[in-house]
Amino acid sequence: MPFFPEELTESAQIINEVIEQLIPQTPGEESKLFDAMRHSSLDGGKRLRPFLVLSSAAIFGVEREFAARVAAAVEFVHCYSLVHDDLPAMDDSPLRRGKPSTHKKYDEATAILAGDALLTLAFEILAQRETHPESSVRCELVRALAEASGGRGMVGGQLLDLIAEKEEFDVGAITRLQRLKTGKIMIFCCEAGAIIGRAGQRSRHALHSYGQALGLAFQVTDDLLDVEGDQDEMGKPANQDTKRKKATFVSVLGAGKAREQAGMLANQAIKHLEIFDKKADPLRDMAHYILERRV
Amino acid sequence: MPFFPEELTESAQIINEVIEQLIPQTPGEESKLFDAMRHSSLDGGKRLRPFLVLSSAAIFGVEREFAARVAAAVEFVHCYSLVHDDLPAMDDSPLRRGKPSTHKKYDEATAILAGDALLTLAFEILAQRETHPESSVRCELVRALAEASGGRGMVGGQLLDLIAEKEEFDVGAITRLQRLKTGKIMIFCCEAGAIIGRAGQRSRHALHSYGQALGLAFQVTDDLLDVEGDQDEMGKPANQDTKRKKATFVSVLGAGKAREQAGMLANQAIKHLEIFDKKADPLRDMAHYILERRV
Repeated sequence: MPFFPEELTESAQIINEVIEQLIPQTPGEESKLFDAMRHSSLDGGKRLRPFLVLSSAAIFGVEREFAARVAAAVEFVHCYSLVHDDLPAMDDSPLRRGKPSTHKKYDEATAILAGDALLTLAFEILAQRETHPESSVRCELVRALAEASGGRGMVGGQLLDLIAEKEEFDVGAITRLQRLKTGKIMIFCCEAGAIIGRAGQRSRHALHSYGQALGLAFQVTDDLLDVEGDQDEMGKPANQDTKRKKATFVSVLGAGKAREQAGMLANQAIKHLEIFDKKADPLRDMAHYILERRV
Repeated sequence: MPFFPEELTESAQIINEVIEQLIPQTPGEESKLFDAMRHSSLDGGKRLRPFLVLSSAAIFGVEREFAARVAAAVEFVHCYSLVHDDLPAMDDSPLRRGKPSTHKKYDEATAILAGDALLTLAFEILAQRETHPESSVRCELVRALAEASGGRGMVGGQLLDLIAEKEEFDVGAITRLQRLKTGKIMIFCCEAGAIIGRAGQRSRHALHSYGQALGLAFQVTDDLLDVEGDQDEMGKPANQDTKRKKATFVSVLGAGKAREQAGMLANQAIKHLEIFDKKADPLRDMAHYILERRV
């Protein structure tokens, strides 16, 4: 994988440019809100989700400008969830991506509102004509992203995550938690290319299965990094899960078995791509990268 | 207005039934999230916004079941904003609609997440086929509601509201604040009927102007009620604005002039409806009701 993470860097640059356009600096009394939205979404972050959207769209030859807007919308949902998760009432994290988290840089009220505005903006962008000429495509994007990120998706997973700090979770319960918390959005990112590219059910299903396996592999390596990673490299505190006695794949399986599991899932993910030609190589490389990543 | 507020009660019942269907009780670990969403959105509240959606849709003979889903979506956005506004970091309100506010009944983390999930659900519902057979209509609903409720709408207004507690706002600044905070959503509610009913620009524009005047009249009487209203009748603490020394229409204009202003705005609102026949009577009655209401 010689072009990794260089290709990831390239997609991160594309996304930063689109976000710059979508949340311009805004004068006036509300400038603080838009500054906080920019602080929460610009720079930093691996931009894995945008990469998945751009790469899955590329399989179907989708115009880059459509895919980039969808990628930005997903990233807004991801960033809003981080802003709210970092709040004192939730994970109480002072650092995010090597910078003060939004409520530390501004204040709690501004962080809550900036998160709300980012989430709302995601749906506004998807519904706008500039994202795709066909309204049926835009509607399906809104519907699928909302389903993946609401109470039966990411938000529900976040609630389970808070419960996991207090109750004993076995590997089945952790898997379910992570499917909701990060899995469904990952799946959306991979399916998004098929939605924008108006691909058939077979392609969409393959990308769904790839996203499901990849998302889980990503979460297992995330848990490994929390134990083994370097705080300076990651830009956020390490050992947070252990400190909170939170059940993770590593605490339940042990590091060795967890690493084995991640490898198996990454291979499964790649296998789901076999119906695609080399246009799907960036997605294949991503599965390898997830095992090797140090941040 | 003999059928007011009975007609309001009727539309509130319709909305409660739809919300019951859209957020059923959910077993399992996440039950707390769905309970909190139900607590935040079921029972109580005047349901003014749903009434506006249902009444504007009725002008164009729209199927009640379509309009009711749109009305529920707007109400979810309204309820999420109340849940987040009540948080300790924002208005710190223990009571809402005569019941403990969501973070008091549950906890702060659950309230933040329940708000997030309600907002997300609003867009999910609008994008679903059951809301309207035409995807272009559904897309326009998503786009317009997102625009009205995001950083350049309700959320931006809420930030200005927090600033208004610390800075001197004149009547122009308060008007702008309220246009963002409550006005844009009110306008959306009135325009929604025209969107679902695929009405022409002239009708949509008339409803826009009606909604704008009505929303402002509503806010002026809201400020009056904060000073003159009865806590038991309203189900929330009175005199909150005065306690916070927040600039309101009443603090800037005085109660007499504010009441005069509300009357003028209500008359303007009614005048904008003159292109419609008696099908628009419920909207006309609403303008009268807003002046008379005690909650």
